[in-house]
Amino acid sequence: MWSNIFLFALLFSTYNNVAVQSFCVADLKGAQTPEGFLCKPPTSVKVDDFILSGLEPPTTPPSSNSSKITLTPAFVQQIPGLNGLGFAVARLDMDVGGVVPLHSHPDASEMLIIVRGTVTAGFIAADNSVFVKTLRSGDVMVLPQGLLHFQLNSGNGKALVHLAFSSSNPSTQFLDVALFGSNLNSDLITKTTLLDLFEVKKLKAIFGGSG
Amino acid sequence: MWSNIFLFALLFSTYNNVAVQSFCVADLKGAQTPEGFLCKPPTSVKVDDFILSGLEPPTTPPSSNSSKITLTPAFVQQIPGLNGLGFAVARLDMDVGGVVPLHSHPDASEMLIIVRGTVTAGFIAADNSVFVKTLRSGDVMVLPQGLLHFQLNSGNGKALVHLAFSSSNPSTQFLDVALFGSNLNSDLITKTTLLDLFEVKKLKAIFGGSG
Amino acid sequence: MWSNIFLFALLFSTYNNVAVQSFCVADLKGAQTPEGFLCKPPTSVKVDDFILSGLEPPTTPPSSNSSKITLTPAFVQQIPGLNGLGFAVARLDMDVGGVVPLHSHPDASEMLIIVRGTVTAGFIAADNSVFVKTLRSGDVMVLPQGLLHFQLNSGNGKALVHLAFSSSNPSTQFLDVALFGSNLNSDLITKTTLLDLFEVKKLKAIFGGSG
Amino acid sequence: MWSNIFLFALLFSTYNNVAVQSFCVADLKGAQTPEGFLCKPPTSVKVDDFILSGLEPPTTPPSSNSSKITLTPAFVQQIPGLNGLGFAVARLDMDVGGVVPLHSHPDASEMLIIVRGTVTAGFIAADNSVFVKTLRSGDVMVLPQGLLHFQLNSGNGKALVHLAFSSSNPSTQFLDVALFGSNLNSDLITKTTLLDLFEVKKLKAIFGGSG
Amino acid sequence: MWSNIFLFALLFSTYNNVAVQSFCVADLKGAQTPEGFLCKPPTSVKVDDFILSGLEPPTTPPSSNSSKITLTPAFVQQIPGLNGLGFAVARLDMDVGGVVPLHSHPDASEMLIIVRGTVTAGFIAADNSVFVKTLRSGDVMVLPQGLLHFQLNSGNGKALVHLAFSSSNPSTQFLDVALFGSNLNSDLITKTTLLDLFEVKKLKAIFGGSG
Amino acid sequence: MWSNIFLFALLFSTYNNVAVQSFCVADLKGAQTPEGFLCKPPTSVKVDDFILSGLEPPTTPPSSNSSKITLTPAFVQQIPGLNGLGFAVARLDMDVGGVVPLHSHPDASEMLIIVRGTVTAGFIAADNSVFVKTLRSGDVMVLPQGLLHFQLNSGNGKALVHLAFSSSNPSTQFLDVALFGSNLNSDLITKTTLLDLFEVKKLKAIFGGSG
Repeated sequence: MWSNIFLFALLFSTYNNVAVQSFCVADLKGAQTPEGFLCKPPTSVKVDDFILSGLEPPTTPPSSNSSKITLTPAFVQQIPGLNGLGFAVARLDMDVGGVVPLHSHPDASEMLIIVRGTVTAGFIAADNSVFVKTLRSGDVMVLPQGLLHFQLNSGNGKALVHLAFSSSNPSTQFLDVALFGSNLNSDLITKTTLLDLFEVKKLKAIFGGSG
Repeated sequence: MWSNIFLFALLFSTYNNVAVQSFCVADLKGAQTPEGFLCKPPTSVKVDDFILSGLEPPTTPPSSNSSKITLTPAFVQQIPGLNGLGFAVARLDMDVGGVVPLHSHPDASEMLIIVRGTVTAGFIAADNSVFVKTLRSGDVMVLPQGLLHFQLNSGNGKALVHLAFSSSNPSTQFLDVALFGSNLNSDLITKTTLLDLFEVKKLKAIFGGSG
Repeated sequence: MWSNIFLFALLFSTYNNVAVQSFCVADLKGAQTPEGFLCKPPTSVKVDDFILSGLEPPTTPPSSNSSKITLTPAFVQQIPGLNGLGFAVARLDMDVGGVVPLHSHPDASEMLIIVRGTVTAGFIAADNSVFVKTLRSGDVMVLPQGLLHFQLNSGNGKALVHLAFSSSNPSTQFLDVALFGSNLNSDLITKTTLLDLFEVKKLKAIFGGSG
Repeated sequence: MWSNIFLFALLFSTYNNVAVQSFCVADLKGAQTPEGFLCKPPTSVKVDDFILSGLEPPTTPPSSNSSKITLTPAFVQQIPGLNGLGFAVARLDMDVGGVVPLHSHPDASEMLIIVRGTVTAGFIAADNSVFVKTLRSGDVMVLPQGLLHFQLNSGNGKALVHLAFSSSNPSTQFLDVALFGSNLNSDLITKTTLLDLFEVKKLKAIFGGSG
Repeated sequence: MWSNIFLFALLFSTYNNVAVQSFCVADLKGAQTPEGFLCKPPTSVKVDDFILSGLEPPTTPPSSNSSKITLTPAFVQQIPGLNGLGFAVARLDMDVGGVVPLHSHPDASEMLIIVRGTVTAGFIAADNSVFVKTLRSGDVMVLPQGLLHFQLNSGNGKALVHLAFSSSNPSTQFLDVALFGSNLNSDLITKTTLLDLFEVKKLKAIFGGSG
Repeated sequence: MWSNIFLFALLFSTYNNVAVQSFCVADLKGAQTPEGFLCKPPTSVKVDDFILSGLEPPTTPPSSNSSKITLTPAFVQQIPGLNGLGFAVARLDMDVGGVVPLHSHPDASEMLIIVRGTVTAGFIAADNSVFVKTLRSGDVMVLPQGLLHFQLNSGNGKALVHLAFSSSNPSTQFLDVALFGSNLNSDLITKTTLLDLFEVKKLKAIFGGSG
């Protein structure tokens, strides 16, 4: 009696033949829109568009860079199936003494899950309240959108943190890199931050900024 | 005195010559974005982009398929002017004994307006509360987004239902077709649903699933 | 072996005991927010919160009012379960000669499904293009958000139209009632519309406007 | 010790090489989406994409058109960097007696900042309440989305108003131009507005409407 | 010279004294809105509103329930600071043979980060495409909103998975619990799923459903 | 003939008696939601809820504070009718040498309209591109959401700037005040910014920070 409900299903789907899928996998080579990438044709979507097999310990140890951290993102560029879904994750490896310097995400909130180690994290609210906590394995912390925050490995061993973001393509503004690694004129920096010119010049030498 | 306000209007609109229209009619042959289709050029928009002349009784009777229903959508593929507006409608014809099998819309809520006949409809909430009601002509029911629901013609005659959706391109996941008409491995089905393997095999034979 | 998966489900849901439901049924006596009403407590939600049993032919015939139409809404005030879902429906009965005068919905697009009769409907776009069509049973038309539009029964019999809106609580601004039924000063009306003062006064007498 | 944090920053950004910027500057020659224009490639973005150097007094005096006003927009077509940001501004110059005739913005709310002069502004709410106020330099007024409103220079000198909109590309529907400058049939106008046919014909002659 | 910029800051903030914070920490005892909970007064916000110290291995082993899994959420009820931010995380412990039965999230997409073990996960798209993959430590997978999906421990040891959701309060609909643990009438189940009545009764006995 | 269309309008509006208005004026003494304030009862809304009569030159000259600027906001706290509309404006007075120090708005983009004077403004993008421009009367500049930016009066006289924001209640994070006027521990500051401890202490003395 019900043997051709399948035919019905096929009939139904002919009406929806353009967009029967309920997701929009990024065409990473195509144009971007204010809400993400254009979609790949549904027929070319495959399971690996939803998967990243690389959220692993970095092959180059974090200690090989001066901040002793490595961030491995699983954002829309790594997982095209995240397009338009409004969230993403990442992995953060921190060697002893590792620091994620003061930064903000202009378009995303962040969560930390401490997998291993001891991490001191904090953010400064718009009313200048400070929210700092030393977190251990199993602790979770939220860092609301657009606010300056930091993480540092405050333990005696390596730390591993899983991150979640409320954007599939979060951008990051590092305070030091923005100020001292860009070509923002040193005079403008001192006028708008009150930092000492000597200090600015010293940090520009470190971060490679010009101007 | 006011004779050239029209000139003013023309002047004003020259500033807006790219996008003076306040809608985005779908270019159905163009790419999709996470928020819908790219827009047709305003100059090629015509009244029929906002109209569907086909929400009529089906020429093939619903009883010619095993579920005894016919769904006629008026979604963005049928009405390009719906693009970006976030809603759509459809017509559902149900013969005696017709059933819309258990299904959900991953990206849309639904409303039913019973035009003719007697229809029993229901949905199961995320806390497993069941909301079922037998509806008659003039009754309206809401089925919130993403929840399993069904409709069946519980009367003695044909039923006609008008549907509204909170998406201009709602997708549908039929439980039976997803499980038994797809290539999802039978072993995975039994493990993740506790359904009996014999039952799974029997339904796969009906719905045409492999694996 | 699986006999206590139910226990698991119960355990799981204890974590979500405040908001395990995935909808927000309006507390119609409570405060409103920019996104709709506050939610009723989940424990007091019942099936009738999702149902309206009154989208029926009006008991008072449309011809008893001068525009010869009756609009019966199924909005959030009638169906509290619509709260936050972003759409609604309504029923429009039009006697011979019935007219829905020129109006707009500041916060919603609209769709018409002609159930019975012949209806001429149209809207004026922001670039002053006019989109008018005479619709018959089975025709569907979209009227994009915020634009002036109208419907009139252009046939020889009664017309019945089902409406859908992209808001669960659409508001309506009737041009005539706004101008001539409000207390907007007549002098301001003539200056900002160029309508003749005599015409304004005449229509104010009809619509009851002061000023 | 910290000398290669800059290297770290570079490493980090290689992951984000497609979309490291947190904005989407409009490609004004490209297609539009329901949420705005496609984005320019990040490498071609320059400071002038965020700037308009033309919100100045009009070279042609407002009094050269019959409504004695000039509107100078700073919308996404003028400032591509506004794409996707959801707001815009404009400048309104009004000569003595200048009037912005009754109109609405289907997709945007508006704010007025009176820079100079005396302006009477008002809007009509969906419940026909009228909100009118005579504003002077330093006064600010909000006009909610989709509602009919107007501004007129009610002082003895020129007026200058800065406008803000809650859309980066607001559209405008002028009542008079929509009704009397379009090709909407005169018979339809009288039926759906109750305006006198003679009045309609007279205004069509002024605004250039046909039909 | 700059010594009172601090005073300026104080002055500035007096304007914003109601809502100077840029987040809305949930008042978990207050009412809910369609977009989340009402906000706590800013003055009562403390660092622990942004922290959960409980995403740890469960004290009761997963194997003590029949599905051999334990889910530990870090949703808005656990972390009030998540309110309105649109994402959340959780921890999933799976013993050998553990299964998260077929389910969907009506209002959230999900990501899996495999921390330890081997997990087979999959989802069925609305066009009945099946996306299944066996994931190992370091693999990440996305499961788009509203679609049926499952996870099972397909390895020889325990598995640990971190989950992220695109909602701060995701709801879950387990297929088995919805069908066989609710009071949905058995006759309705067989009619709308084609499952055998005997099978339905057997599973109702397991999951505790009535009707 | 049409004399009772007004009656019709009254009839129609009885259906909408709770929320016939299409806006939500803030009840500033009530609770906040993630999307803004609760709404005032429609019956208590008055024209002044949409108006601020105070965007005037400050009575205390900007030069009385060390940054020589005064910001006068027209946000939702000043204009309750802005609630839920997603934008706001403000007035910025800058004396000679006035500076708006480096800051960001976590939840809003900003536009500048230079009314008078010469202002150098700039922002740093997430890829460390710097966008700086010296603006004169009639220039408009956009500063995208969440990015560090500044303005300084680079001319010889006073400057007046009108600001627009893409939030009705934008928050602000001043870099100096966040770092040196809060109680963020000095050791954490040096570790996460590489600033010299002596510099940090000196600025804390200026901005009043502890820790």
